Amino acid sequence: MTELPESEVDVLIIGAGPAGLMLALWLARLGVKTRIVDKRTDKVYSGQADGFQVRSLEILDSFGVGERVWKEANRMLEISFWNPDSNGAIFRSAHSVNTIPGLSRFTESVLHQGRIEGFFLDAIRDSDTPDQALRVERMVIPTSLEIDESAVEDADAHPVTVTLRHLTEEEATPTQMLSNLADGIFRSNLADDDVGDILERSKAREARDEIVRAKYVVGCDGAHSWTRKTLGKEFEMKGETTDAIWGVMDIVPITDFPDIRFRTMIHSTSGAIMIIPRENRMVRLYIQLKEVSAGSGRVDRSQITPDFIFKSAQKVFSPYKLEYHYCDWWTAYQIGQRTGDHFSKLDRVFLAGDAVHTHSPKAGQGMNVSMQDSYNLGWKIGLVSKGILPREVLSTYELERKKIAKDLIDFDGKFSKLFSGRPAKDIMDETGVSSDEFQKAFHTSRMFTTGVGVNYEPTVLVAKEAEEGTDHGLKRSTAKSTQSLATNCKLGQRFPSHKVIRQSDARLWELHHKLPSNGRFRLVVFGGDISQQSQRDTVNNFGAWLKFYMPKLPTIKLLPGSDPHSGSMKFITDEDPSIVDVLLVHSAPRDKIDLLGDVHEVYHPFDPKLGWDYDKVFADGETYYEEPARAYEKYGIDKSKGAVVGLRPDGYVGLVTPVSEEGQQEIEKWFGGIFQHE
Amino acid sequence: MTELPESEVDVLIIGAGPAGLMLALWLARLGVKTRIVDKRTDKVYSGQADGFQVRSLEILDSFGVGERVWKEANRMLEISFWNPDSNGAIFRSAHSVNTIPGLSRFTESVLHQGRIEGFFLDAIRDSDTPDQALRVERMVIPTSLEIDESAVEDADAHPVTVTLRHLTEEEATPTQMLSNLADGIFRSNLADDDVGDILERSKAREARDEIVRAKYVVGCDGAHSWTRKTLGKEFEMKGETTDAIWGVMDIVPITDFPDIRFRTMIHSTSGAIMIIPRENRMVRLYIQLKEVSAGSGRVDRSQITPDFIFKSAQKVFSPYKLEYHYCDWWTAYQIGQRTGDHFSKLDRVFLAGDAVHTHSPKAGQGMNVSMQDSYNLGWKIGLVSKGILPREVLSTYELERKKIAKDLIDFDGKFSKLFSGRPAKDIMDETGVSSDEFQKAFHTSRMFTTGVGVNYEPTVLVAKEAEEGTDHGLKRSTAKSTQSLATNCKLGQRFPSHKVIRQSDARLWELHHKLPSNGRFRLVVFGGDISQQSQRDTVNNFGAWLKFYMPKLPTIKLLPGSDPHSGSMKFITDEDPSIVDVLLVHSAPRDKIDLLGDVHEVYHPFDPKLGWDYDKVFADGETYYEEPARAYEKYGIDKSKGAVVGLRPDGYVGLVTPVSEEGQQEIEKWFGGIFQHE
Repeated sequence: MTELPESEVDVLIIGAGPAGLMLALWLARLGVKTRIVDKRTDKVYSGQADGFQVRSLEILDSFGVGERVWKEANRMLEISFWNPDSNGAIFRSAHSVNTIPGLSRFTESVLHQGRIEGFFLDAIRDSDTPDQALRVERMVIPTSLEIDESAVEDADAHPVTVTLRHLTEEEATPTQMLSNLADGIFRSNLADDDVGDILERSKAREARDEIVRAKYVVGCDGAHSWTRKTLGKEFEMKGETTDAIWGVMDIVPITDFPDIRFRTMIHSTSGAIMIIPRENRMVRLYIQLKEVSAGSGRVDRSQITPDFIFKSAQKVFSPYKLEYHYCDWWTAYQIGQRTGDHFSKLDRVFLAGDAVHTHSPKAGQGMNVSMQDSYNLGWKIGLVSKGILPREVLSTYELERKKIAKDLIDFDGKFSKLFSGRPAKDIMDETGVSSDEFQKAFHTSRMFTTGVGVNYEPTVLVAKEAEEGTDHGLKRSTAKSTQSLATNCKLGQRFPSHKVIRQSDARLWELHHKLPSNGRFRLVVFGGDISQQSQRDTVNNFGAWLKFYMPKLPTIKLLPGSDPHSGSMKFITDEDPSIVDVLLVHSAPRDKIDLLGDVHEVYHPFDPKLGWDYDKVFADGETYYEEPARAYEKYGIDKSKGAVVGLRPDGYVGLVTPVSEEGQQEIEKWFGGIFQHE
Repeated sequence: MTELPESEVDVLIIGAGPAGLMLALWLARLGVKTRIVDKRTDKVYSGQADGFQVRSLEILDSFGVGERVWKEANRMLEISFWNPDSNGAIFRSAHSVNTIPGLSRFTESVLHQGRIEGFFLDAIRDSDTPDQALRVERMVIPTSLEIDESAVEDADAHPVTVTLRHLTEEEATPTQMLSNLADGIFRSNLADDDVGDILERSKAREARDEIVRAKYVVGCDGAHSWTRKTLGKEFEMKGETTDAIWGVMDIVPITDFPDIRFRTMIHSTSGAIMIIPRENRMVRLYIQLKEVSAGSGRVDRSQITPDFIFKSAQKVFSPYKLEYHYCDWWTAYQIGQRTGDHFSKLDRVFLAGDAVHTHSPKAGQGMNVSMQDSYNLGWKIGLVSKGILPREVLSTYELERKKIAKDLIDFDGKFSKLFSGRPAKDIMDETGVSSDEFQKAFHTSRMFTTGVGVNYEPTVLVAKEAEEGTDHGLKRSTAKSTQSLATNCKLGQRFPSHKVIRQSDARLWELHHKLPSNGRFRLVVFGGDISQQSQRDTVNNFGAWLKFYMPKLPTIKLLPGSDPHSGSMKFITDEDPSIVDVLLVHSAPRDKIDLLGDVHEVYHPFDPKLGWDYDKVFADGETYYEEPARAYEKYGIDKSKGAVVGLRPDGYVGLVTPVSEEGQQEIEKWFGGIFQHE
């Protein structure tokens, strides 16, 4: 046997669905040497996951991808609930707002998975540098993975060895295609894992194998995750599988049902349906299939056809008519919730997305939680690979994301049960699900389902006090936050976006657009009313300290795409900026402030080739063109005193502290705990 | 000599700058067989025209291109005026709003010409059909043009014969490149026309010629227009040329001047400067060059170097410092204003843009008026070529655009004189230009400079009464409008965009986004409060009449890109829609209206494959997420009675009439006058 080719890489990503692509984009933007492989021949073209929660849109927007989704997606603004009346005919029992107004500039939206995968691929391409043009390597599967345990704590080592096999097109094509319609069964949990098949078919051709030595490997390889299985028995997912089977169809409906363009939950005596209006005149229907059941064994898949699913839907819609000419995609799945105890092995091999938590798709959570997993992981692996962060930060991934996965399957279990339940006949019907009960469950879950409610535990990254009785065993920050200074910038939660006015040119900006995902931590200095001499002195003294302190921190090279909302970086400078970006948001009348004359130069740093930076100081208050900005009020910050809000590279609040010497000390402690290599 | 290859085309466009590309995009979207040729080797990469007025952005947005400009461009929201104090040092004499708040969703913006040319090329590509993939043919110049006058009135004839020569790269490269810096002099009016040169150099190779027979030819070939010159002496442009020379530089400034990111007019004792802050940290400076003059003859171009221009700028900025490291582009020009008497020959050969009006660039008008010329012409030529409109509509092009060109050069002459003038020393200084006078001139011209003030004359296209004593000789509509029904939808002016709420799914839309440039006329039925039975009957009776009347109108095939704001048209139907699109905007409480049950089906047409159309009915009023829509108030329409507003395919108001039998008669007269072929 000839020797296999060998190579090194910082990060190897297995699987190029939304979780894998999100991670690849992060690492491309950070300039980390990365490969991403996928067993399929191509990206998804129709169907699959489709719901975008507001936090996902915010995250995508931080890479410059959000606008494309937001433009093409269908937005679901209101929701209808339908229930059977005393004669069993369905009627609209309630109609209300869908997501929470004011929570975000985005609302829940729907666009098929293939588009977002395409947007990721474009954004990764836009991040090309002379050193790296990261592309998905398709028709490649891993066949072995080993960790050299003696080297895991050596930051420079490549202790994970993976064998990759390059397939032919024939080998990579799923065998389970059932019909001419775009049929998603082969990706459903009703289908068997086909990796065994593929390996079997490709066995004879080991010559097309190669060996990759990686610092880190991330399995984003879905519910049947090869990576998870390879890591061993303690990585098995656990949970419940119910007997309930649901069908899914993407059709262009021909119907007289009045709420077909609203998100709608129908409970009828013939079963339940959820309507998800989509882009391109399409509608997705989730249809309870009461006449099939997993029962004790596997489902008889031959029974589940588009025709069968659609007839079930027609019964629920009755007396309204439902027909279609175009069907874009269909599938079916069995309701169940499973998650694993471990999200990483030795902080060298990680699992993300469906590889470590699966559940039913109706709540539109799957793709979102998966992308958010790798959004959480990407900057940590990236900055550790670059030597900027110590390895111990990697342990926060499992801590932060396992809790979300658990919340997710709890939510899904409860929600699915309510949805699959029999509608209550009347108020005395205790085993049925009443419309009120269902609506209440829906509305109370919104902070979770929007993704905005995520609240990370205290660690070195989040300087907040632990709740009593919780000890996760990871090191905590020695810094102390003062949450009361910024009541709506909650420690451990995502920093919200509100509008502010750029001092230099009066343009209104979403503050998020000045906080792109490029690996930098942030100090947002809410400087208060700096038209008052004493407050200006406070802010400028703080600036003088920053000027002294910042050079002690690491620097980071910014790559193409790192500032996606401010135009391309055509003119470049020789100096790498600090890993910490400083922004000033003041509450003084804008015309009373002279950017260059009044505020310390740390807030408008000078570059010998580019001059002063005019993009770091923002005001609250009036403009000629739009409603006044009300940033201080919305962030919950006092206009006279202000506050400093410290943000992680993923936009979560890690520190809230005063603009003062005390604040300086807390900042030193916070960053000290994060950047210190032991 | 061998015979030259011959071919036929509906429209031949000469010149692929903004005017030519706008026309090409229109014709691509309409599916008109078109060719576009340009003498240069490539599109513009830096410098050139850069200012986008709000009307241009609205027009670009109607093709789906506006968002790209709006995202990348620098927005100029406020303006500063600086003048010399009694010691001659400059100070900020005023600071105010730049454009008119509330006029449009856009504001004046700046992005270099190469980007917009690139966006046009992308949008044209997105309009590809199996029948046509329109691409700019570069390094091609026309060498002869003849019109067969006997065939001009035959709508199906191809009476214009043009010989095209295909150049080599060497032949097409301008000889006037002066330095390594991107130097725009070769496109400036200080440069000689180089077509003669090119022809001379390429003479020997006539074998690379071809003959094109076109229905229509449009010269978008700039100030030295070969097309114009070929049409003969009566097409010569007339006007004034002053002695004043101005320099232009695009630099990344290193300066302590406080207003460098605002649009700023500086009058100093050393000359005048206009600051145009741009994308990518750049700033454009227009710099009066007091030390050179055209005098009696041509300017000594060797004197005009970046160094010379920059030194002049430094003097004006003094005592503020100005330096730079990066210069992206520079040029110089001589102030003058010229326009032609004729914009078309026999309505078979047309001129647009700089080919028929030139002026100084400082007001940011050039590219805008040029694009608006061909925006006006495109749908007319397109729909005439397709046999939908009679040829006589083509005469409205010269009528409508010549007036704008004249207004433009009047404005520019006045504005340039004020700007180049000596600043007044004090209130008694009558020969100097006072700051107040200058500011007043600036502000009063804004309705014109935004492009929103354009007001077209009464013709078959615009059913309004002529002012006394005006007779342009073209036929007028026999329909009579009632302007008072919609006081802010002014006849002859562009229909403004305000937000409305889609009945079917509660999404807020800019109404412009439902009026894309795809060749269709529109009837916007403001139906009033249709929760009232009598008003609902009125609107539905009107709908019943529409259902009867519409089939008498032509139909139009919609092509890819024709609905750029509503996602791609993945699902298609067999039927071509009417040339007239009908939208209903009501003022009833949204939750009181059942789209399918309450309003006539003409407002939600049924398609046998796609079901009902959910995208045609909109409401005014409240939503959960944003400020309430106030469309009726903003359009100046009474909520109880409503109005019907008739729009041309370019979005200009052609008819305002009641929702009644009277309105039906006026609509029949209006469309009768437009579509009737004699």
